[in-house]
Amino acid sequence: MFNFLPKGFNFFDLFDKQVDYAVEAAKCFKELVAKGNIDDASLKKIEDIEHQGDEVAHDIFLHLNQTFITPFDREDIHALAKELDNITDMINTIVSRLVIYKLTAVDKNLIEFAVVIEESVSAVSCAVKGLRQMKHSQSIMNSCVEINRLENVGDAMRDKVLAELFETEKNPITVIKLKEIYQDAETILDVCEDVTHVVGAILLKQA
Amino acid sequence: MFNFLPKGFNFFDLFDKQVDYAVEAAKCFKELVAKGNIDDASLKKIEDIEHQGDEVAHDIFLHLNQTFITPFDREDIHALAKELDNITDMINTIVSRLVIYKLTAVDKNLIEFAVVIEESVSAVSCAVKGLRQMKHSQSIMNSCVEINRLENVGDAMRDKVLAELFETEKNPITVIKLKEIYQDAETILDVCEDVTHVVGAILLKQA
Amino acid sequence: MFNFLPKGFNFFDLFDKQVDYAVEAAKCFKELVAKGNIDDASLKKIEDIEHQGDEVAHDIFLHLNQTFITPFDREDIHALAKELDNITDMINTIVSRLVIYKLTAVDKNLIEFAVVIEESVSAVSCAVKGLRQMKHSQSIMNSCVEINRLENVGDAMRDKVLAELFETEKNPITVIKLKEIYQDAETILDVCEDVTHVVGAILLKQA
Repeated sequence: MFNFLPKGFNFFDLFDKQVDYAVEAAKCFKELVAKGNIDDASLKKIEDIEHQGDEVAHDIFLHLNQTFITPFDREDIHALAKELDNITDMINTIVSRLVIYKLTAVDKNLIEFAVVIEESVSAVSCAVKGLRQMKHSQSIMNSCVEINRLENVGDAMRDKVLAELFETEKNPITVIKLKEIYQDAETILDVCEDVTHVVGAILLKQA
Repeated sequence: MFNFLPKGFNFFDLFDKQVDYAVEAAKCFKELVAKGNIDDASLKKIEDIEHQGDEVAHDIFLHLNQTFITPFDREDIHALAKELDNITDMINTIVSRLVIYKLTAVDKNLIEFAVVIEESVSAVSCAVKGLRQMKHSQSIMNSCVEINRLENVGDAMRDKVLAELFETEKNPITVIKLKEIYQDAETILDVCEDVTHVVGAILLKQA
Repeated sequence: MFNFLPKGFNFFDLFDKQVDYAVEAAKCFKELVAKGNIDDASLKKIEDIEHQGDEVAHDIFLHLNQTFITPFDREDIHALAKELDNITDMINTIVSRLVIYKLTAVDKNLIEFAVVIEESVSAVSCAVKGLRQMKHSQSIMNSCVEINRLENVGDAMRDKVLAELFETEKNPITVIKLKEIYQDAETILDVCEDVTHVVGAILLKQA
């Protein structure tokens, strides 16, 4: 009766794929902001990653509705797929916003954010890939602690750069644009932290 | 024991009512922005629709807590009522924001948004009313596809009008106001898309 | 087997603690804005309250995952802890934003908001503490009605002060800052209203 699932179907494989797309998007974002120049090819690349990530999320939701036995709670699988999708979405959003706002100058604050974002998404990848072998939960927890640390780093960075922006930038239109961009950057780190909440719930239930 | 439910009580009737209010609000909104003039009577009309919609949502939540047999999953009923309520709420919010910001000039961008919003809410109505006869799921799916298409149309419109706004509008206060209004307009289309996620989950479980 | 819970552990005690922190934060906020001067000591005090509130929320989530018998639905316990945490979080957010934006002048609008916020959080405290004795549900419902009334008061205040701000403030940078602060203030009242939804669901199920 349950043989209608593709042979060898495995939630962990899909989560690996999803998190690989998030890592790729974060890497792409870091390269973009370092160049301060978003050409059509890079823009298309980020959009493609986001689109492919969407499809994996959709696959997970679909299989979730057709599967009776899941490696962990259905609601946790749903939440994890949703949050991982949010990471890639938010990276795509910030890039298209840079284009719409014509913010193509190199911005040292954004470069700093992009570095922290890549570190955090990379820790998310370790945490999520660790779920296959939940007995190594200490290593998963270490990644989560690191993601939380980086979210606090991001909070402090956002507070500092916004204070600076309001202090030094006299063009209100530029204030409007950069304020939104910096807040988006910090939101990506928030979403990474949201992943740790789901991962924490999964670990606790298996304990 | 369960006879305390009003005779003839039916979740589908309440969803029909809710979605009719959303359609009415969208129609009202399109008329308002075409005139570019929000008189007290129109403002009150939108507020009344929102208030009546609220009451239906409240009725659904109340019955949900008192009913043991529901036409589909309780969580889906809750989510559907919530999302339909959000549509009417957001239309009321954008209208009151136009009043607060004294944005009463005819704005061609907003007229375009209002047309797309009315089309999308109308497709939402088809999808939701279709749930009574779930064997016609193809027709429900077609409405959902259309709602998703219109959400993409809205995304592209918002990107285009925001780029134009930042390029051409020199008054930063006007930028602040219109940016929020256009983003609100696009959010209404996002909420319509959220309805398709709930509807999709319902169909899948009945398949 | 279930003896690993701390002796005398009680969800109600934790909710009482959480809501006491929210009340303390609201009181602190009212004092701060009345002085219009946020010294390091007051800032640290608000941050400490937020941090302590976080720990109680974390305790509730932890116990929820280890407890089989709960005084009411697990999802309602989770939602209540989350919303109470949001109140303290939002008060901390608005205070740190005042600092970042260097908004330290006495603002009569914000003083008015702070009064309404303190009243609302105080009603939230009555409602939540009332849950220990659910037979006194009428008194709990009265608090919820009051919280809803204050949320409407807050909506009207925000609409009025934003209309005034756009009418009278000519510095767009100041408009950006104050608009966000007033919206944050209103959001705190929204979160208090979200608590009433959870409380209402709890009462209904016990009826």
